[in-house]
Amino acid sequence: MQKPLILVTNDDGIVAPGIRALVEVASEFGEVVVVAPNKPQSGQGHAITITDPLRLRKVPIFENIQALECSGTPVDCVKLAKSVVLKDRKIDLCVSGINHGSNASINIIYSGTMSAAMEASIEGIDSIGFSLLDYSNDADFSGAKKYARIIIKQVMEQKLKKCKLLNVNIPDLPTDDIKGIKVCRQGEANWEESFALAKDPRGSSYYWLTGQFNDHNTEDQETDIWALKNGYVSIVPSWHDLTKTEAISSMKYLEIK
Amino acid sequence: MQKPLILVTNDDGIVAPGIRALVEVASEFGEVVVVAPNKPQSGQGHAITITDPLRLRKVPIFENIQALECSGTPVDCVKLAKSVVLKDRKIDLCVSGINHGSNASINIIYSGTMSAAMEASIEGIDSIGFSLLDYSNDADFSGAKKYARIIIKQVMEQKLKKCKLLNVNIPDLPTDDIKGIKVCRQGEANWEESFALAKDPRGSSYYWLTGQFNDHNTEDQETDIWALKNGYVSIVPSWHDLTKTEAISSMKYLEIK
Repeated sequence: MQKPLILVTNDDGIVAPGIRALVEVASEFGEVVVVAPNKPQSGQGHAITITDPLRLRKVPIFENIQALECSGTPVDCVKLAKSVVLKDRKIDLCVSGINHGSNASINIIYSGTMSAAMEASIEGIDSIGFSLLDYSNDADFSGAKKYARIIIKQVMEQKLKKCKLLNVNIPDLPTDDIKGIKVCRQGEANWEESFALAKDPRGSSYYWLTGQFNDHNTEDQETDIWALKNGYVSIVPSWHDLTKTEAISSMKYLEIK
Repeated sequence: MQKPLILVTNDDGIVAPGIRALVEVASEFGEVVVVAPNKPQSGQGHAITITDPLRLRKVPIFENIQALECSGTPVDCVKLAKSVVLKDRKIDLCVSGINHGSNASINIIYSGTMSAAMEASIEGIDSIGFSLLDYSNDADFSGAKKYARIIIKQVMEQKLKKCKLLNVNIPDLPTDDIKGIKVCRQGEANWEESFALAKDPRGSSYYWLTGQFNDHNTEDQETDIWALKNGYVSIVPSWHDLTKTEAISSMKYLEIK
Protein backbone atom coordinates (compact mmCIF):
# COMPACT_ATOMS: atom_id res chain seq x y z
CA MET A 1 0.00 0.00 0.00
CA GLN A 2 1.25 3.47 -0.84
CA LYS A 3 2.21 5.66 2.10
CA PRO A 4 0.05 8.74 2.70
CA LEU A 5 1.52 11.95 1.27
CA ILE A 6 1.94 14.76 3.80
CA LEU A 7 2.82 18.35 2.85
CA VAL A 8 4.64 20.31 5.56
CA THR A 9 4.96 24.08 5.50
CA ASN A 10 5.23 27.01 7.91
CA ASP A 11 5.70 30.77 8.11
CA ASP A 12 8.85 31.01 10.22
CA GLY A 13 10.95 29.78 7.30
CA ILE A 14 12.30 26.39 6.27
CA VAL A 15 15.22 26.52 8.73
CA ALA A 16 13.10 27.27 11.83
CA PRO A 17 13.24 24.75 14.70
CA GLY A 18 9.44 24.46 14.68
CA ILE A 19 9.18 23.01 11.17
CA ARG A 20 11.93 20.52 11.99
CA ALA A 21 9.88 19.29 14.95
CA LEU A 22 6.80 18.95 12.72
CA VAL A 23 8.71 17.12 9.96
CA GLU A 24 9.91 14.60 12.56
CA VAL A 25 6.37 13.91 13.77
CA ALA A 26 4.77 13.87 10.31
CA SER A 27 7.39 11.41 9.02
CA GLU A 28 5.97 8.78 11.36
CA PHE A 29 2.71 8.85 9.38
CA GLY A 30 3.68 8.95 5.72
CA GLU A 31 5.89 10.36 2.97
CA VAL A 32 6.72 13.96 3.85
CA VAL A 33 7.39 16.72 1.32
CA VAL A 34 8.40 20.14 2.65
CA VAL A 35 7.70 23.37 0.74
CA ALA A 36 8.33 26.36 2.98
CA PRO A 37 9.43 29.99 2.76
CA ASN A 38 13.13 30.81 2.39
CA LYS A 39 12.83 33.53 5.03
CA PRO A 40 10.61 34.37 8.02
CA GLN A 41 7.08 35.29 6.91
CA SER A 42 5.34 35.85 10.23
CA GLY A 43 2.36 38.18 10.04
CA GLN A 44 1.94 37.58 6.33
CA GLY A 45 -1.71 36.57 6.74
CA HIS A 46 -3.22 35.25 3.54
CA ALA A 47 -0.84 37.25 1.35
CA ILE A 48 -0.05 35.93 -2.12
CA THR A 49 2.58 37.10 -4.57
CA ILE A 50 1.10 38.38 -7.81
CA THR A 51 3.47 41.10 -8.97
CA ASP A 52 6.75 39.20 -8.59
CA PRO A 53 8.10 35.91 -9.86
CA LEU A 54 8.38 33.00 -7.46
CA ARG A 55 11.36 30.70 -7.12
CA LEU A 56 11.68 27.18 -5.78
CA ARG A 57 14.95 25.56 -4.76
CA LYS A 58 15.74 22.09 -3.43
CA VAL A 59 17.44 22.21 -0.04
CA PRO A 60 18.99 19.04 1.45
CA ILE A 61 18.41 19.96 5.09
CA PHE A 62 16.12 17.08 6.13
CA GLU A 63 17.47 13.54 5.91
CA ASN A 64 15.71 11.44 3.23
CA ILE A 65 12.97 14.04 2.79
CA GLN A 66 12.25 16.12 -0.30
CA ALA A 67 12.39 19.77 0.75
CA LEU A 68 12.08 22.95 -1.29
CA GLU A 69 12.41 26.53 -0.19
CA CYS A 70 10.20 29.10 -1.87
CA SER A 71 10.74 32.83 -2.29
CA GLY A 72 7.07 33.60 -1.63
CA THR A 73 4.56 33.67 1.20
CA PRO A 74 3.22 30.63 3.09
CA VAL A 75 0.12 30.61 0.85
CA ASP A 76 2.36 30.73 -2.24
CA CYS A 77 4.18 27.67 -0.87
CA VAL A 78 0.96 25.66 -0.71
CA LYS A 79 -0.15 26.78 -4.16
CA LEU A 80 3.23 25.84 -5.67
CA ALA A 81 3.31 22.54 -3.77
CA LYS A 82 -0.08 21.57 -5.13
CA SER A 83 0.28 22.85 -8.71
CA VAL A 84 3.98 22.30 -9.41
CA VAL A 85 5.90 20.15 -6.88
CA LEU A 86 3.15 17.57 -6.26
CA LYS A 87 1.20 18.03 -9.49
CA ASP A 88 -0.72 14.84 -10.36
CA ARG A 89 -0.31 13.47 -6.82
CA LYS A 90 -2.97 13.44 -4.10
CA ILE A 91 -1.95 15.24 -0.91
CA ASP A 92 -3.52 13.38 2.04
CA LEU A 93 -2.70 15.92 4.73
CA CYS A 94 -1.17 19.39 5.04
CA VAL A 95 0.42 20.38 8.34
CA SER A 96 1.75 23.87 8.97
CA GLY A 97 4.06 25.01 11.75
CA ILE A 98 4.96 24.34 14.43
CA ASN A 99 4.67 28.10 14.72
CA HIS A 100 6.85 29.97 17.19
CA GLY A 101 4.08 31.90 18.97
CA SER A 102 0.31 31.81 19.44
CA ASN A 103 -2.17 31.69 16.61
CA ALA A 104 -5.14 31.41 18.94
CA SER A 105 -8.04 33.85 18.94
CA ILE A 106 -7.71 36.89 16.64
CA ASN A 107 -4.11 35.92 15.78
CA ILE A 108 -5.45 33.49 13.19
CA ILE A 109 -6.20 36.29 10.75
CA TYR A 110 -2.62 37.65 10.80
CA SER A 111 -1.04 34.22 10.71
CA GLY A 112 0.91 32.90 7.75
CA THR A 113 0.95 29.47 9.41
CA MET A 114 -2.83 29.29 9.53
CA SER A 115 -3.29 30.88 6.10
CA ALA A 116 -1.09 28.20 4.54
CA ALA A 117 -3.19 25.50 6.20
CA MET A 118 -6.38 27.30 5.16
CA GLU A 119 -5.23 27.46 1.53
CA ALA A 120 -4.82 23.67 1.50
CA SER A 121 -8.23 23.23 3.16
CA ILE A 122 -9.88 25.34 0.44
CA GLU A 123 -8.48 22.82 -2.02
CA GLY A 124 -10.19 20.04 -0.08
CA ILE A 125 -7.08 18.81 1.73
CA ASP A 126 -7.32 17.92 5.44
CA SER A 127 -5.18 20.60 7.09
CA ILE A 128 -3.85 21.38 10.55
CA GLY A 129 -1.92 24.42 11.74
CA PHE A 130 0.15 23.91 14.91
CA SER A 131 1.44 26.73 17.10
CA LEU A 132 3.36 26.75 20.36
CA LEU A 133 2.86 29.67 22.74
CA ASP A 134 6.57 30.46 22.89
CA TYR A 135 8.10 32.97 20.49
CA SER A 136 11.72 32.14 21.19
CA ASN A 137 13.93 30.44 18.64
CA ASP A 138 15.08 27.88 21.22
CA ALA A 139 11.57 27.00 22.42
CA ASP A 140 11.05 23.50 23.82
CA PHE A 141 8.88 21.64 21.29
CA SER A 142 8.57 18.37 23.22
CA GLY A 143 5.01 19.01 24.46
CA ALA A 144 3.98 20.34 21.07
CA LYS A 145 5.40 17.24 19.36
CA LYS A 146 3.58 14.91 21.70
CA TYR A 147 0.21 16.52 21.02
CA ALA A 148 0.86 17.00 17.29
CA ARG A 149 1.49 13.23 17.13
CA ILE A 150 -1.79 12.46 18.92
CA ILE A 151 -3.83 14.82 16.73
CA ILE A 152 -2.25 13.83 13.40
CA LYS A 153 -2.82 10.15 14.22
CA GLN A 154 -6.52 10.74 14.91
CA VAL A 155 -7.00 12.92 11.84
CA MET A 156 -5.22 10.43 9.56
CA GLU A 157 -7.46 7.64 10.86
CA GLN A 158 -10.80 9.44 10.99
CA LYS A 159 -10.30 12.08 8.27
CA LEU A 160 -11.67 15.61 8.61
CA LYS A 161 -15.23 15.31 7.37
CA LYS A 162 -17.27 18.30 8.49
CA CYS A 163 -14.40 20.74 8.68
CA LYS A 164 -11.16 20.61 6.70
CA LEU A 165 -9.09 22.96 8.88
CA LEU A 166 -7.97 22.77 12.51
CA ASN A 167 -6.25 25.57 14.40
CA VAL A 168 -4.20 23.85 17.11
CA ASN A 169 -2.38 25.83 19.80
CA ILE A 170 -0.19 24.32 22.48
CA PRO A 171 0.43 26.02 25.84
CA ASP A 172 3.98 26.89 26.82
CA LEU A 173 4.24 24.29 29.60
CA PRO A 174 6.37 21.26 30.42
CA THR A 175 4.84 18.25 28.63
CA ASP A 176 3.54 16.62 31.80
CA ASP A 177 1.82 19.81 32.93
CA ILE A 178 -0.39 19.98 29.82
CA LYS A 179 -3.82 18.86 30.98
CA GLY A 180 -5.27 17.54 27.72
CA ILE A 181 -7.03 18.74 24.57
CA LYS A 182 -10.14 20.95 24.26
CA VAL A 183 -12.16 21.53 21.08
CA CYS A 184 -13.28 25.17 21.24
CA ARG A 185 -14.28 28.26 19.34
CA GLN A 186 -12.12 31.28 18.53
CA GLY A 187 -11.98 33.66 21.50
CA GLU A 188 -12.54 37.40 21.14
CA ALA A 189 -9.52 39.64 21.51
CA ASN A 190 -7.73 42.57 19.92
CA TRP A 191 -4.22 43.94 19.67
CA GLU A 192 -3.71 47.36 21.18
CA GLU A 193 -0.96 48.95 19.15
CA SER A 194 1.68 51.26 20.44
CA PHE A 195 4.00 52.28 17.65
CA ALA A 196 7.56 53.01 18.70
CA LEU A 197 8.72 56.19 17.00
CA ALA A 198 12.39 56.59 16.11
CA LYS A 199 14.63 58.65 13.79
CA ASP A 200 16.97 57.26 11.17
CA PRO A 201 20.53 58.67 10.69
CA ARG A 202 19.13 61.21 8.21
CA GLY A 203 16.61 62.51 10.74
CA SER A 204 13.52 60.96 9.15
CA SER A 205 10.90 59.42 11.42
CA TYR A 206 9.93 55.79 11.32
CA TYR A 207 7.68 53.52 13.34
CA TRP A 208 7.94 49.98 14.64
CA LEU A 209 4.74 48.08 15.16
CA THR A 210 4.37 46.77 18.68
CA GLY A 211 1.33 45.98 20.75
CA GLN A 212 -0.40 44.31 23.62
CA PHE A 213 -2.83 41.43 23.33
CA ASN A 214 -6.17 42.07 25.05
CA ASP A 215 -8.37 39.02 25.44
CA HIS A 216 -12.06 39.47 26.12
CA ASN A 217 -13.00 35.84 26.86
CA THR A 218 -10.95 34.81 29.85
CA GLU A 219 -14.02 33.43 31.66
CA ASP A 220 -15.71 31.73 28.70
CA GLN A 221 -14.78 28.05 28.90
CA GLU A 222 -15.76 27.37 25.27
CA THR A 223 -12.94 29.54 23.85
CA ASP A 224 -9.37 28.76 22.87
CA ILE A 225 -8.21 31.59 25.13
CA TRP A 226 -9.67 29.86 28.19
CA ALA A 227 -8.33 26.43 27.18
CA LEU A 228 -4.78 27.72 26.77
CA LYS A 229 -4.86 29.76 29.99
CA ASN A 230 -5.97 26.63 31.81
CA GLY A 231 -3.30 24.32 30.49
CA TYR A 232 -5.11 22.63 27.60
CA VAL A 233 -4.16 22.26 23.96
CA SER A 234 -6.87 24.13 21.99
CA ILE A 235 -8.36 22.93 18.71
CA VAL A 236 -10.64 25.33 16.83
CA PRO A 237 -12.40 23.86 13.76
CA SER A 238 -11.99 26.73 11.28
CA TRP A 239 -12.74 27.75 7.70
CA HIS A 240 -12.67 30.56 5.16
CA ASP A 241 -16.26 31.82 5.23
CA LEU A 242 -16.27 35.26 6.88
CA THR A 243 -20.02 35.84 6.58
CA LYS A 244 -21.61 37.01 9.82
CA THR A 245 -24.66 34.92 9.07
CA GLU A 246 -26.76 36.01 12.06
CA ALA A 247 -26.48 39.65 10.91
CA ILE A 248 -27.85 39.14 7.39
CA SER A 249 -31.53 39.55 8.27
CA SER A 250 -30.89 42.75 10.24
CA MET A 251 -29.05 44.31 7.27
CA LYS A 252 -31.85 43.85 4.76
CA TYR A 253 -32.72 47.55 5.06
CA LEU A 254 -29.77 48.14 2.74
CA GLU A 255 -31.41 46.22 -0.12
CA ILE A 256 -32.72 47.90 -3.27
CA LYS A 257 -34.64 45.78 -5.77
CA MET B 1 -21.73 70.07 15.43
CA GLN B 2 -18.46 68.40 14.53
CA LYS B 3 -18.33 66.68 11.17
CA PRO B 4 -17.96 62.88 11.25
CA LEU B 5 -14.40 61.65 10.78
CA ILE B 6 -13.94 59.18 7.91
CA LEU B 7 -10.74 57.20 7.33
CA VAL B 8 -10.15 56.19 3.70
CA THR B 9 -7.66 53.51 2.71
CA ASN B 10 -7.14 50.89 -0.01
CA ASP B 11 -4.73 48.27 -1.31
CA ASP B 12 -4.10 49.50 -4.85
CA GLY B 13 -2.01 52.38 -3.51
CA ILE B 14 -2.74 56.01 -2.74
CA VAL B 15 -2.51 57.14 -6.38
CA ALA B 16 -5.00 54.57 -7.73
CA PRO B 17 -8.13 55.94 -9.46
CA GLY B 18 -10.35 53.83 -7.17
CA ILE B 19 -9.32 55.58 -3.95
CA ARG B 20 -9.81 58.96 -5.63
CA ALA B 21 -13.39 57.99 -6.45
CA LEU B 22 -13.97 56.89 -2.85
CA VAL B 23 -12.44 60.07 -1.39
CA GLU B 24 -14.84 62.13 -3.53
CA VAL B 25 -17.87 60.24 -2.25
CA ALA B 26 -16.73 60.08 1.40
CA SER B 27 -16.06 63.85 1.44
CA GLU B 28 -19.79 64.46 1.03
CA PHE B 29 -20.36 62.89 4.47
CA GLY B 30 -17.63 64.24 6.73
CA GLU B 31 -13.99 65.11 7.25
CA VAL B 32 -11.87 62.67 5.27
CA VAL B 33 -8.36 61.56 6.22
CA VAL B 34 -6.52 59.27 3.81
CA VAL B 35 -3.83 56.81 4.97
CA ALA B 36 -2.98 54.40 2.17
CA PRO B 37 -0.05 52.35 0.86
CA ASN B 38 2.66 54.05 -1.21
CA LYS B 39 2.61 51.17 -3.71
CA PRO B 40 0.16 48.52 -4.93
CA GLN B 41 -0.54 45.93 -2.22
CA SER B 42 -3.08 43.68 -3.90
CA GLY B 43 -3.18 40.16 -2.55
CA GLN B 44 -1.61 41.20 0.74
CA GLY B 45 -4.44 39.67 2.78
CA HIS B 46 -4.20 40.51 6.45
CA ALA B 47 -0.41 40.91 6.31
CA ILE B 48 1.26 43.19 8.85
CA THR B 49 4.83 44.46 8.96
CA ILE B 50 6.67 43.32 12.05
CA THR B 51 10.28 42.95 10.94
CA ASP B 52 10.70 46.30 9.16
CA PRO B 53 10.17 49.91 10.13
CA LEU B 54 7.14 51.75 8.77
CA ARG B 55 7.16 55.22 7.28
CA LEU B 56 4.42 57.81 6.86
CA ARG B 57 4.64 60.80 4.50
CA LYS B 58 2.17 63.59 3.82
CA VAL B 59 1.20 63.76 0.14
CA PRO B 60 -0.74 66.76 -1.19
CA ILE B 61 -2.63 64.88 -3.89
CA PHE B 62 -6.21 65.45 -2.71
CA GLU B 63 -7.49 69.03 -2.50
CA ASN B 64 -8.15 70.16 1.09
CA ILE B 65 -7.81 66.63 2.42
CA GLN B 66 -5.15 65.32 4.78
CA ALA B 67 -3.47 62.39 3.04
CA LEU B 68 -0.53 60.25 4.08
CA GLU B 69 1.18 57.47 2.22
CA CYS B 70 2.52 54.55 4.23
CA SER B 71 5.33 52.13 3.40
CA GLY B 72 3.41 49.18 4.84
CA THR B 73 0.45 46.96 4.09
CA PRO B 74 -3.22 48.02 4.10
CA VAL B 75 -3.60 46.68 7.65
CA ASP B 76 -0.52 48.65 8.73
CA CYS B 77 -2.19 51.77 7.31
CA VAL B 78 -5.24 51.31 9.51
CA LYS B 79 -3.14 50.59 12.58
CA LEU B 80 -1.01 53.70 12.01
CA ALA B 81 -4.07 55.81 11.23
CA LYS B 82 -5.70 54.82 14.49
CA SER B 83 -2.67 54.89 16.78
CA VAL B 84 -0.59 57.71 15.29
CA VAL B 85 -2.31 59.92 12.70
CA LEU B 86 -5.73 60.08 14.42
CA LYS B 87 -4.62 59.28 17.96
CA ASP B 88 -7.09 60.75 20.49
CA ARG B 89 -9.75 61.24 17.81
CA LYS B 90 -12.79 59.02 17.24
CA ILE B 91 -13.03 57.54 13.74
CA ASP B 92 -16.71 57.33 12.79
CA LEU B 93 -16.30 55.28 9.63
CA CYS B 94 -13.55 53.49 7.71
CA VAL B 95 -14.00 52.94 3.97
CA SER B 96 -11.54 50.94 1.91
CA GLY B 97 -11.23 50.84 -1.88
CA ILE B 98 -12.70 51.27 -4.34
CA ASN B 99 -10.74 48.16 -5.25
CA HIS B 100 -9.87 47.48 -8.87
CA GLY B 101 -11.24 43.93 -9.09
CA SER B 102 -13.63 41.62 -7.23
CA ASN B 103 -13.39 40.86 -3.54
CA ALA B 104 -16.53 38.75 -3.56
CA SER B 105 -16.62 35.13 -2.41
CA ILE B 106 -13.28 33.54 -1.53
CA ASN B 107 -11.40 36.64 -2.73
CA ILE B 108 -12.09 38.29 0.63
CA ILE B 109 -9.37 36.25 2.33
CA TYR B 110 -6.64 37.37 -0.12
CA SER B 111 -7.80 40.97 -0.18
CA GLY B 112 -5.81 43.83 1.29
CA THR B 113 -8.84 46.08 0.75
CA MET B 114 -11.08 43.91 2.93
CA SER B 115 -8.35 43.20 5.49
CA ALA B 116 -7.88 46.94 6.04
CA ALA B 117 -11.61 47.34 6.59
CA MET B 118 -11.64 44.28 8.85
CA GLU B 119 -8.82 45.69 10.95
CA ALA B 120 -10.88 48.83 11.61
CA SER B 121 -13.95 46.72 12.41
CA ILE B 122 -11.98 44.73 15.01
CA GLU B 123 -11.32 48.08 16.69
CA GLY B 124 -15.07 48.71 16.81
CA ILE B 125 -15.17 51.11 13.86
CA ASP B 126 -17.99 50.79 11.30
CA SER B 127 -16.19 49.67 8.16
CA ILE B 128 -17.00 49.08 4.53
CA GLY B 129 -14.81 47.67 1.77
CA PHE B 130 -15.85 48.58 -1.80
CA SER B 131 -14.70 46.70 -4.89
CA LEU B 132 -15.56 47.10 -8.57
CA LEU B 133 -15.47 44.02 -10.80
CA ASP B 134 -13.07 45.64 -13.26
CA TYR B 135 -9.32 45.18 -12.87
CA SER B 136 -8.27 47.87 -15.35
CA ASN B 137 -6.62 51.07 -14.23
CA ASP B 138 -9.04 53.13 -16.36
CA ALA B 139 -12.17 51.41 -15.01
CA ASP B 140 -15.40 53.43 -15.00
CA PHE B 141 -16.22 54.13 -11.34
CA SER B 142 -19.49 56.00 -11.91
CA GLY B 143 -21.76 53.08 -10.95
CA ALA B 144 -19.53 52.21 -8.01
CA LYS B 145 -19.63 55.82 -6.80
CA LYS B 146 -23.40 55.97 -7.02
CA TYR B 147 -23.85 52.86 -4.89
CA ALA B 148 -21.02 53.74 -2.48
CA ARG B 149 -22.88 57.02 -1.86
CA ILE B 150 -26.18 55.22 -1.16
CA ILE B 151 -24.57 52.69 1.19
CA ILE B 152 -22.37 55.17 3.08
CA LYS B 153 -25.39 57.44 3.63
CA GLN B 154 -27.44 54.58 5.11
CA VAL B 155 -24.58 53.34 7.29
CA MET B 156 -23.82 56.84 8.60
CA GLU B 157 -27.47 57.31 9.53
CA GLN B 158 -28.26 53.89 10.97
CA LYS B 159 -24.78 52.79 12.18
CA LEU B 160 -23.60 49.20 11.91
CA LYS B 161 -24.98 47.57 15.03
CA LYS B 162 -24.93 43.80 14.69
CA CYS B 163 -22.01 43.62 12.28
CA LYS B 164 -19.19 46.13 11.95
CA LEU B 165 -17.91 45.09 8.52
CA LEU B 166 -19.54 45.08 5.08
CA ASN B 167 -18.01 43.56 1.96
CA VAL B 168 -19.52 45.49 -0.95
CA ASN B 169 -18.91 44.46 -4.56
CA ILE B 170 -20.20 46.33 -7.59
CA PRO B 171 -20.79 44.63 -10.95
CA ASP B 172 -18.92 45.91 -13.99
CA LEU B 173 -21.98 47.40 -15.71
CA PRO B 174 -23.14 50.81 -16.92
CA THR B 175 -24.73 52.58 -13.93
CA ASP B 176 -28.28 52.33 -15.24
CA ASP B 177 -27.95 48.58 -15.87
CA ILE B 178 -27.22 47.83 -12.20
CA LYS B 179 -30.44 46.36 -10.84
CA GLY B 180 -30.10 47.22 -7.15
CA ILE B 181 -28.51 45.97 -3.95
CA LYS B 182 -28.66 42.47 -2.39
CA VAL B 183 -27.54 41.54 1.14
CA CYS B 184 -26.06 38.05 0.84
CA ARG B 185 -23.62 35.51 2.18
CA GLN B 186 -20.16 34.70 0.88
CA GLY B 187 -20.37 32.31 -2.08
CA GLU B 188 -18.21 29.20 -2.32
CA ALA B 189 -15.42 29.23 -4.88
CA ASN B 190 -11.76 28.45 -5.36
CA TRP B 191 -8.89 29.59 -7.54
CA GLU B 192 -7.41 26.92 -9.79
CA GLU B 193 -3.78 27.85 -10.19
CA SER B 194 -1.68 27.38 -13.27
CA PHE B 195 1.81 28.66 -12.67
CA ALA B 196 3.58 30.01 -15.73
CA LEU B 197 7.13 28.67 -15.81
CA ALA B 198 9.89 30.79 -17.33
CA LYS B 199 13.69 31.10 -17.30
CA ASP B 200 15.66 34.18 -16.32
CA PRO B 201 18.72 35.34 -18.34
CA ARG B 202 20.93 33.14 -16.17
CA GLY B 203 18.87 30.06 -16.97
CA SER B 204 17.18 29.73 -13.57
CA SER B 205 13.51 28.81 -13.46
CA TYR B 206 10.84 31.02 -11.99
CA TYR B 207 7.06 30.92 -11.74
CA TRP B 208 4.31 33.48 -12.09
CA LEU B 209 1.11 32.88 -10.20
CA THR B 210 -1.93 32.86 -12.42
CA GLY B 211 -5.25 31.14 -12.09
CA GLN B 212 -8.88 30.69 -12.91
CA PHE B 213 -11.78 31.50 -10.61
CA ASN B 214 -14.20 28.60 -10.16
CA ASP B 215 -17.45 29.51 -8.47
CA HIS B 216 -19.58 26.78 -6.95
CA ASN B 217 -22.72 28.79 -6.15
CA THR B 218 -23.98 30.14 -9.44
CA GLU B 219 -27.53 28.90 -8.75
CA ASP B 220 -27.76 29.88 -5.07
CA GLN B 221 -29.59 33.20 -4.92
CA GLU B 222 -28.41 33.95 -1.37
CA THR B 223 -24.74 34.33 -2.40
CA ASP B 224 -22.72 37.31 -3.55
CA ILE B 225 -21.68 35.33 -6.63
CA TRP B 226 -25.31 35.07 -7.76
CA ALA B 227 -26.08 38.72 -6.97
CA LEU B 228 -23.13 39.98 -9.03
CA LYS B 229 -23.82 37.64 -11.97
CA ASN B 230 -27.38 38.93 -12.01
CA GLY B 231 -26.57 42.62 -12.01
CA TYR B 232 -26.86 43.46 -8.31
CA VAL B 233 -24.45 45.16 -5.95
CA SER B 234 -23.64 42.54 -3.26
CA ILE B 235 -23.26 43.31 0.44
CA VAL B 236 -21.95 40.53 2.69
CA PRO B 237 -21.99 41.28 6.46
CA SER B 238 -18.60 39.92 7.49
CA TRP B 239 -16.30 39.51 10.47
CA HIS B 240 -13.09 38.00 11.77
CA ASP B 241 -14.31 34.84 13.52
CA LEU B 242 -13.22 31.84 11.46
CA THR B 243 -14.70 29.18 13.75
CA LYS B 244 -16.74 26.60 11.87
CA THR B 245 -19.23 26.52 14.74
CA GLU B 246 -21.44 23.75 13.38
CA ALA B 247 -18.43 21.40 13.27
CA ILE B 248 -17.43 21.76 16.93
CA SER B 249 -19.68 19.02 18.30
CA SER B 250 -18.57 16.52 15.66
CA MET B 251 -14.90 17.12 16.53
CA LYS B 252 -15.22 16.35 20.24
CA TYR B 253 -13.64 12.93 19.66
CA LEU B 254 -10.32 14.79 19.61
CA GLU B 255 -10.69 15.90 23.23
CA ILE B 256 -8.54 14.55 26.06
CA LYS B 257 -9.41 15.55 29.61
